[in-house]
Parts: sequence; C-alpha cells; structure tokens
Amino acid sequence: MNFTSDNAYGAAPEILGALADTNAGAAAPYGADPFTARVTRALSEIFDRQVAAFPVVTGTAANALALATVSPPYGAIFCHAESHIVIDECAAPEFFSGGARLVPLEGADGKITPDVVETSLTHYRGGVHSPKPSAISITQATERGTVYRPEEIRALSEVAKREGMTLHMDGARFANALAYLKCSPTDITWKAGVDVLSFGASKNGALCAEAVVFFDAALVHDFEYRRKRAGHLLSKMRFVSAQLNAYLAEDRWLKWAALANAKTQRLAAALQGIPDAELAHPVEANEIFAFLPNPLLQNIRAAGAQFYDWGMAENGRTLARFVLSFLTPDEDIECFCAILRQQ
Amino acid sequence: MNFTSDNAYGAAPEILGALADTNAGAAAPYGADPFTARVTRALSEIFDRQVAAFPVVTGTAANALALATVSPPYGAIFCHAESHIVIDECAAPEFFSGGARLVPLEGADGKITPDVVETSLTHYRGGVHSPKPSAISITQATERGTVYRPEEIRALSEVAKREGMTLHMDGARFANALAYLKCSPTDITWKAGVDVLSFGASKNGALCAEAVVFFDAALVHDFEYRRKRAGHLLSKMRFVSAQLNAYLAEDRWLKWAALANAKTQRLAAALQGIPDAELAHPVEANEIFAFLPNPLLQNIRAAGAQFYDWGMAENGRTLARFVLSFLTPDEDIECFCAILRQQ
Amino acid sequence: MNFTSDNAYGAAPEILGALADTNAGAAAPYGADPFTARVTRALSEIFDRQVAAFPVVTGTAANALALATVSPPYGAIFCHAESHIVIDECAAPEFFSGGARLVPLEGADGKITPDVVETSLTHYRGGVHSPKPSAISITQATERGTVYRPEEIRALSEVAKREGMTLHMDGARFANALAYLKCSPTDITWKAGVDVLSFGASKNGALCAEAVVFFDAALVHDFEYRRKRAGHLLSKMRFVSAQLNAYLAEDRWLKWAALANAKTQRLAAALQGIPDAELAHPVEANEIFAFLPNPLLQNIRAAGAQFYDWGMAENGRTLARFVLSFLTPDEDIECFCAILRQQ
Amino acid sequence: MNFTSDNAYGAAPEILGALADTNAGAAAPYGADPFTARVTRALSEIFDRQVAAFPVVTGTAANALALATVSPPYGAIFCHAESHIVIDECAAPEFFSGGARLVPLEGADGKITPDVVETSLTHYRGGVHSPKPSAISITQATERGTVYRPEEIRALSEVAKREGMTLHMDGARFANALAYLKCSPTDITWKAGVDVLSFGASKNGALCAEAVVFFDAALVHDFEYRRKRAGHLLSKMRFVSAQLNAYLAEDRWLKWAALANAKTQRLAAALQGIPDAELAHPVEANEIFAFLPNPLLQNIRAAGAQFYDWGMAENGRTLARFVLSFLTPDEDIECFCAILRQQ
Repeated sequence: MNFTSDNAYGAAPEILGALADTNAGAAAPYGADPFTARVTRALSEIFDRQVAAFPVVTGTAANALALATVSPPYGAIFCHAESHIVIDECAAPEFFSGGARLVPLEGADGKITPDVVETSLTHYRGGVHSPKPSAISITQATERGTVYRPEEIRALSEVAKREGMTLHMDGARFANALAYLKCSPTDITWKAGVDVLSFGASKNGALCAEAVVFFDAALVHDFEYRRKRAGHLLSKMRFVSAQLNAYLAEDRWLKWAALANAKTQRLAAALQGIPDAELAHPVEANEIFAFLPNPLLQNIRAAGAQFYDWGMAENGRTLARFVLSFLTPDEDIECFCAILRQQ
Repeated sequence: MNFTSDNAYGAAPEILGALADTNAGAAAPYGADPFTARVTRALSEIFDRQVAAFPVVTGTAANALALATVSPPYGAIFCHAESHIVIDECAAPEFFSGGARLVPLEGADGKITPDVVETSLTHYRGGVHSPKPSAISITQATERGTVYRPEEIRALSEVAKREGMTLHMDGARFANALAYLKCSPTDITWKAGVDVLSFGASKNGALCAEAVVFFDAALVHDFEYRRKRAGHLLSKMRFVSAQLNAYLAEDRWLKWAALANAKTQRLAAALQGIPDAELAHPVEANEIFAFLPNPLLQNIRAAGAQFYDWGMAENGRTLARFVLSFLTPDEDIECFCAILRQQ
Repeated sequence: MNFTSDNAYGAAPEILGALADTNAGAAAPYGADPFTARVTRALSEIFDRQVAAFPVVTGTAANALALATVSPPYGAIFCHAESHIVIDECAAPEFFSGGARLVPLEGADGKITPDVVETSLTHYRGGVHSPKPSAISITQATERGTVYRPEEIRALSEVAKREGMTLHMDGARFANALAYLKCSPTDITWKAGVDVLSFGASKNGALCAEAVVFFDAALVHDFEYRRKRAGHLLSKMRFVSAQLNAYLAEDRWLKWAALANAKTQRLAAALQGIPDAELAHPVEANEIFAFLPNPLLQNIRAAGAQFYDWGMAENGRTLARFVLSFLTPDEDIECFCAILRQQ
Repeated sequence: MNFTSDNAYGAAPEILGALADTNAGAAAPYGADPFTARVTRALSEIFDRQVAAFPVVTGTAANALALATVSPPYGAIFCHAESHIVIDECAAPEFFSGGARLVPLEGADGKITPDVVETSLTHYRGGVHSPKPSAISITQATERGTVYRPEEIRALSEVAKREGMTLHMDGARFANALAYLKCSPTDITWKAGVDVLSFGASKNGALCAEAVVFFDAALVHDFEYRRKRAGHLLSKMRFVSAQLNAYLAEDRWLKWAALANAKTQRLAAALQGIPDAELAHPVEANEIFAFLPNPLLQNIRAAGAQFYDWGMAENGRTLARFVLSFLTPDEDIECFCAILRQQ
C-alpha cells in the first residue's frame, strides 16, 4: 500500500511498448528525429495553437530551464512558499538562471493570489537594489492537491503582464488538474495568460518524460542552448519523445489522470469517515492532505500503509499526505479502506 | 548506411527488455531503489574496488557533473582542444562548475601529453590572476578513435598529482577502448591514476544511461546535491539503473564494444584499399578518420552512405569520419564495401 | 537636513588625508603593498587574534564574497527577511555563490533567533531535495538599528555549529554596535562564535573601504581567487588599505561611531517628545525607526528634512527611518529639533 | 626603477585633489549624484555622441560586466590568447557571464585579425552543440604594446556584425593608443564599429576608476542590475566619478598618455642601442617587449631595475617587458639608460 508519491509506480505498459516500437533502425540524434517532431504537433493540437515544445527527462529540468529562459540572473520569481521549485528541487532554478531569486509567498490551499504577489512586489521596487521582478510561477495542480480555476490564473497573469513578468506553470500534475476541471487545456494555459508550461508525464505513467511548452515563440529565445548545456539534450531523444507520443495518444494522459483522481476520491471518502479525521484542503486532484489521529496513523502504518507525515498538528493529530496514481492497485485501496473501517 | 555516429542507432533488445523487467510494482524513487544499488555493486566488481557510482542520462551531464565536483568555479581544466567537453557540450562544464575555464591543448591523434600540459601550466602560475589548475580531462577512446595506453594515462596522472589536480576520464566510449586494449578496466582507470570516470553506455546500446564513477570516496563530496539541482536525479531512476545493469551483465558491454570495433576494422580495411585514401589516425576503437578523394566522397554519398566531413584537406581530398555501432547492420557494411570496390 | 543614510555623507578628512600620504612612489600592486599588510596587523590587534583580512570597496562585495566562500552553490543561508543581503544587494550572494539560496526569516527588532532558524531548518532536512544548510548570516547593528547582545550571537552560533553551518556577520555598522555595547570586539565576534565578518568602514567615514575578516584561517580557502575574479582586487589596493588604516588608527572608528550614536540619541529624544510619535524599536546604534503622524511628516519634509518612509502604519501614522553619521552637521540636528518643537 | 607595470605608480595629484573637492556635504548615493552625471556628459562630448557610461573601480570589473551584458551564459567570446581577459582576470568574464566561453586566438603583435576569427568560427557552427558566438573582444592598446589601426578595427567589426556578434574593446590603455594614433576617439570606437568600451583610467593616473561606455543605448539593457549585484555600485560613487572627471578635464588623460608614450620611446631607443637586443614588437604605446641578452638582464636587475621576464627565448636571450607611466620618474629613465650604456 504505497501512497507516498505518484512517482513510486513504474510506467504504463503502453509507454513501455512505445519504446520498443521506436527502436528500429537509425534515427537522427539530439531530437532531430520524427518522433520528437510529432510531440510538437501533438501538443499544438491539444493546445489548439502552434506551440514550441521541448522534451526533457525530469520536472526539475523542465521548471528550471523554463524559468531560466524567462528570468535573467538578476531576476525575482514569485511563487508559493511550498512550491516544488522552492522545496524540492535543491535550488535548481537558482542554478539554471545563474542566481535569480525565488520569492516565497504564503497562500491558502497551496495557491498564491494577486494580493500576496502585489504586496511582495512593493519590496522589489527599489531599482537595482533588488532583483528585477521577472516571473510568477504557479503549480497546477498545486502541491496541496488543489486546482487553480481559470479565473484565478487569469488574475495572476494580469499582475504579471502589468509588471512585465512572465507567467510560468509547473504542470507536473497538469493532467490531474485538467481531469478535475474538465475544461479545455487552453482555458488554464494561454487563454488564461500562461506563457510557458512544464507539461508533466513522469508522475502519470511515463518513465521519464516532460515537455517544456512555450505558447509564444518569442519567449523560446535560446532555450535549446540552455537545454544542451544542462546535459538535457539526449542523443537518443526519440525515446523520450516516444513516451510523450504514447502518453498523448488516444487521450491516455487524461484518462489516466481521471482514473488517479477517482482512486484518490475513494480513499478520501474513506478517510472522511474516520472520527476526528479532517481534510486539510479540498481534494481535487490525486493528493490528499488529512489531519488524522496519531493512534490511527500508527495503526495504518503498522498495517503496511506507506505515506508521508506532513508536519505536526495540535490535539493529537498529524497532517498526513497520500498520493495516488492510476497505477495504484485497486486492491491496495480496498485493503486500506478495510483497515480504516476496523479502526 | 548510417555511419554518422554510434548514437544514431537505438537500444539493444536486452536493455529494452530490462526496462520491462524493472517496471513491476512500486519502488523507492530518486535512486533509493535496489536497481540503483546494484549498479554500484556491479561497477565495484568490474573495477575491483569499492566505487561510488551515480547514474545519469547523458554524457554531457556525466562530464559536467564530474568536472564541477572536482573543479572550483575559479578552476582551470586542461584537455584536448577537440575533446567533447570543448567542442560538443555547449560549455556545459563552464555552466555546471560556475565558470571554470577549459584550457584547450593540441596533441596528435586526439591525445594530450604531459609536455603540452606542463607548457600550458606555465601560464597558470600567476596566483590569483589566473584560474587555479584543478583538473586534467582525457577522453578514452579519444575523439579521433585512438586509445590511450595505460602508461600514457599514468604519465598524465603524475602531472595531475604533482600539481594538485584531479584526473578525469570521459569514457563515453570506454568499452571500445577496453575492448581494444584487452587489459583490465583497472589498468586504465584508478591503477593509472584516474580519479573520476564518466562511464558511457548510451553510445553502446543503452537508451540513455551513463554513470559517474568516483574511485576515491573523498572526491564524491556533494556530488548528489549537484546532480539533483541539475535536474539529473530522475524520480524513476530505476529505469536508468536497469539499463546499466543489463549493460554490465554477462559482459555485454565488452562484447558489444568488441563487435563494434570489429565492424569498424572491416570498414577501415575497405577504405584503405582505395587509391589515394589515407587513414588520418590509427583505427583503434569504433571511429575511422580518413582522407578520401572528393569524387569518391560524392559517389558514396550519392549511393546512400551517411557520414560527416571533418574538414578540408589539400589535394582534392577531404577528411571524413565514420562511426560504427555493434548495431550497425552487417548488410550496410557489406553494401558500403561493395560500393567502394566499384570506385 | 539629510537623514536618509549614513552613506550620504562624504569621507572623514583624516581618511582623505591618508590617501595623499599613501600616494608617493611605486608600490607593489594587487594588495602586495605594505599598507595592505598593515590592515591585517591592525585588525589582528583589534580582534586579539591572528585574522585573515581582505579589503574590498563595498559592503555588498564583502558580504557576497564572504558568503560564497563559506557556502557551496547548493547551500542555504539563513538570515533575517529584512537583512541587507536579502533586500538591498540585488541577489549578490546568489550570484557570487553560484546559486545558493537565501532563506528569509522573520524576527522582532531586525534580529533572528535560534527558534526561527530551527523551525526553518525542518524544511531543509530532505537530503538532496533541498539546498544544504550552509550558513547563518546576521547583521550587527541590525537593519532596524538594534544591536545583538553577545549571548544572542552565541546562541545562534550554537545552532550553526550543531548543524555544520558557518556564522557570518554583516558588520556594515559594526562600529556603531560596538560603541553601543562598549564591550570588546572579541565578545561579539569570534568569542561568540562568529566565523567571518564583513567589517564596514564606508558608512562611518571612509570613501569606499570594507574588510572581510576571517577568524579561522581554514575558512579562507580560496577567497583570494574569488575576490580577483569578481573584479574586487584593485591594482592600487594601497588606496583602499590606507583608508582602513586611517580608520582604525587612534580608535577613530569607535569614536566616530560613538559620535554618530550620540547624535542619533539626540534626534531620537526629540522625536519621542512628539505627541503620537512612537519608536518602533530601541534606538541602539545610528538608526531611528519611528511611527510619526502623517501631518508631521509632511511638515518636516516641507521644512527640508530628508529621510525614508519605511511603510504605512495604521491610524494616520507612517513608519519613518532616520540615519545619522558622525558627519551629520550638528546644525542640522538643531534645526530639525527646532522644527519638531514648533509642531 | 620600477618598470613592472603602469599600475605600480600612484595617482596624479590632480585626481587626488578632486577627491577633496568632491567631499563636501551630503550627496545622493549609488551614482545618483551630479559628479556621476558629469562623467556621462564628458564622455559623450569626447565621443561626439550620446553614450551611456558607468563608472567602476577595476578594469576586470569593466571588462567582465561589459562582456556579460553582451554575451549570454552560453555565448562564445573571441579574443587574443594573451588578452587580459584570458590571462590576467582569473576567469572573471566566465564568472560574470555565467559560464560563457573565451575562445583564445593567436595573432602577431598581440592583435587578432578577421581571418583567425573566421577560421575559429567554423568550429562554432554546430548549432546548440557549441556555445553561440556572441562577441569579439580586442584590447587597445594591445597587451604587446601595439595599437590597432582604425581599419583593423573596422575589419573585425564587419565580421562581428555579419555574425551577429558584439565588438568589445578593452581600453585599459585606450589613452595611450589614442595618443599614438593622434586620431579622434571616434575613429577607433563607434565609427570603427566598437559597441562597448572599457575606458581605463587606473593605469594612467587614477586611483581606481574605469568606465564602461556603451555607444548604443540598446545594448545597455540591464547593465545596472549586473553592476549592483557584482558589488560594483559604490554607495559613495561620487569619489569614483570625481576621478574620471578630473581625468577627462583639460585633456589630462591624453597629455598623460602622450607623456607615458614619450618616456617609453626614450627607454626603447636606449634598449635598441644594445648589441643583440631586439624589440619583439613595434613600440607604439607605453609597453616595450624586448629580447635581451641574459647577462644584461642580470646586470640591470642587479642595478635595481624592476621588470618582468615574459618567457624564454633561444640563444641566450629572454623576452623582457617594460611598462612606463607618465609618473615614472625621469631620473629612473636616465639612470636606466646610463646603466645600459655601461653594458
């Protein structure tokens, strides 16, 4: 019963199969192959617009490369204090950008709002004494398993545009957000003012595949130089692109995300049935944050459930995080629910 | 007939198969899985010594991470002017190290010698006015398809040790070098004074797998922080490690390299039979550099052979490069030889 | 009536005079001159210990070079959210360190405490996923005009030592702090666990002179390479060193700081006499932060007083900052006090 | 008899005097003072065009800031292998730019030519595999004491423009070059295609003052952020600007350079009179490179002359470098010539 992360599971058979299908014969290296070209076409279709898309193997690389492309070394990037780029990437954005500053902001449910960005901006109006505000970065779905609504994104993008900043979206769980909102991918990206998207696949069935998607060709600039010199231009890029092609084909990415979300809802419902349990945030994607009684936590751990403590809460309860994948076995969920019922 | 590069071909079926074998169930992410632990064990056995080994997905990442670990930002790294880190990696070592200097040196057959390093060092004795000599980096097999002998490496390592520098080996084609020398892997690495090795697999049958191998644990330092913040710590690292495990099992890496070398010899022999053709360097690994008459080049290109021009030579000849993989089809070599015979 | 900053005033005549005295004849460039050697001797005497001292021309350079020397590129530096390195140096520490993270902490009166550092550290225990805690940086006197007591510094140093971090002190106004505490310079530096100090002079009578002071030679490492490649090793370094020598001679630095502090107390006393005025922090060095009624602020500005608004407060009052130098003319203070009395 | 460098001497009395004249009263810090504004006006007049000029305290800072402004982190900067940025600045351009590559080129008399740039460029046409050609940097006067003619500069600028590169001039000894050529400052700068100039004063009478001069406002971009975060925006910038104003007033800079050049000619003439002595390069500015018999070198050193050996030559001779300043005492030159006559 592994609920630690959606990256604990392996790859979808369809994606593994695509690797074999891609393997035959010689192909132009470094992304000049037809598989990679097809990624751009597929994403352009999905986003109903010509996009520039670049495969990479990790979300950290996607985020850091995207941010370094749109932020100068003396830039300031405004983001949630708990965002992946702040908490989980070992200062990769700082490294790739050459020293830009991440400005950590607070906000309920893992979201930032125009207000908090604007308040923070007042400290960045000192001319050259402060880093230059260059980007806002938001996470969709958020690190707390919630989902930005189109109008929330648009409101942030208005601040960004007014201040000459770029709006970046860390979409490591973009599919889960979209499966929740059931809107068009365009509604939460370029139509809402997003300039560049880290489009995730690794957490949703790929081995190692993400794409940096620019909605405006002018922003791409020298992205490809940056990717190369970061060691992220694979010689056999076709194997990354093949993952993305299989992921995008037949709406698999959305089906898998919807399945992960549904499994998450089942587990959330079971948790809500527990006396003294309390969800910390709306469960909208494939993550659950719940305050649970400490004895319960001990018991379910003893019974074999794996998940993360997310900090201590008062009154004998602890905040716990559960993350599900479409690959999380149904039996594991059943088993977990059965354990909960026994408490 | 694709002789452009050994990365033009795909992956060995054994390696693709290993991915599927690795896929079942959940595993600890970020390299805390058993497949990754097995890589270190396998390489420690091969190198007859406890090594610290870290999988990454590209040779550029392996080289740049290794060099950044052993060279400070104000360091100078001495290497051949045609080495991959100088010519083909878009200044990745400079990026990863935070601005270290690559000092390009000349040398016959793609090799550098103690003499040329020492001459160059005289310009780096100005105290803080020059970057601090920090590393020597050599390529094995070299970019000209030749192979350093153990004593050549040892001589360079003596300069490195005397000057307080680290000796790095770019082993993107390490297997090909070893298959040629038929010595122990130890003879051309730590026994010859190599401190850190970029151990390649991608050019010899893997999809995307290399390992940075430290022979001295003290040098590892904070390598893992550097890999993480460069976006090169994959969440599903088991899929990279599985490639390396399959590669190292049953001596496949050496068998494949020997096969590639043998195919290369066949093609080299055919080229040598051409009037006015001349090998530019001894053919020791899986690369051929040959001066060929321009009309011949035109004809063989017209007949479908793909390869790179490597610069103009006098007297109506051009330097051409041919690279072979164990996956290069025998029919392609046959066909190419037949074309040559018709000239 | 310029109370905007202590850097608004020029240089002390004694320091200007020292430049002329230093000028005669040729001298070894790049700090190999006798004037620079004398700086180290003078500071070693003041700190009652052999120190390594390096002159630079700005506080930003001193802080960023010191921090880059003790923090790796993947390091995290814990400091007050309003510290100069966070607010006023355009991400210089990030630049010099190659991408280290400043972790901004809250704390009353411009000070951080062990508690807040330890709480923040809990987010930096994720191994390679977070930057590695590398340093604590405190400001003495603080950006709010208060002064750390020896025991406050010692308590922070204990956290630092326990966590393997270095303790840096931004002493742009070190003299003002010392003049207030009337303790030995050793009590608030190495005896309290400070490892490296940015020793300021520019705000207290020099033209452009600071010194980075290492109390432990082992930490110096390659500081001199870093200073050189940052363009901060002046060819005619003797002119910076001469400023420091004149500054340190005859206890001038302490006398000037005491004078600045005394002038500040006079102005603070006058402000406290105003109805509805309120000091935001104890006035311990040469800065005053006071909530003042908005009409009063308008009047004193109209009367020619220059100072900074430091943010809006409720109830018709604004937080204003006044900074004084020993060079602030007594007449300006008199005039300002007279204006206040008329309100 | 110090002929080691033009930075061995102190400052001109006129420049020291200007510091005192600048000192009175308060002034806006960080370059917002009237003295700094005057620098831009003075340089705009001298260059017969509105320029953007930024004072800094070292030539290394001027060069590295200028190059980082016009070259991306993945850029390649073509320059002479012996240029100051390659040999004497501890990889500062690499640091400031975030990892750009300096491409060292050979060329007679310290100069590079369009030919050698174009040959090198052929290795930088591999798309993202090589750093992107971004700038050519030349030194005027060169590190060998020679002077680029306007048409030589123009020819290099044509290559730069054609390739989308910027042309930077390291003018640490710009005044000496101009004094030799006796042309307009415009003839060897923007009229010849120079985009940005490091305008030196420190080697010619200032304490610590250089200016980065952009001839095209569009190139300035965010230079001021870069200067600030490098710790090169002095709070009391007026004292650097005052040096430049005094330097530029009354044509002092040119008079002093002409004087230094004339002194250099006297010493060169004396050296040419020595049997077996040979000038390595035309003596055009204030540096002499001469092959001198080793016994002679020993004798003149024993007699008190200080200068640098610049490498070994054959036949019992060594290349020696002599640099003169307008502040080099006439008696020292007389004395040195007398010693030579005795040989």
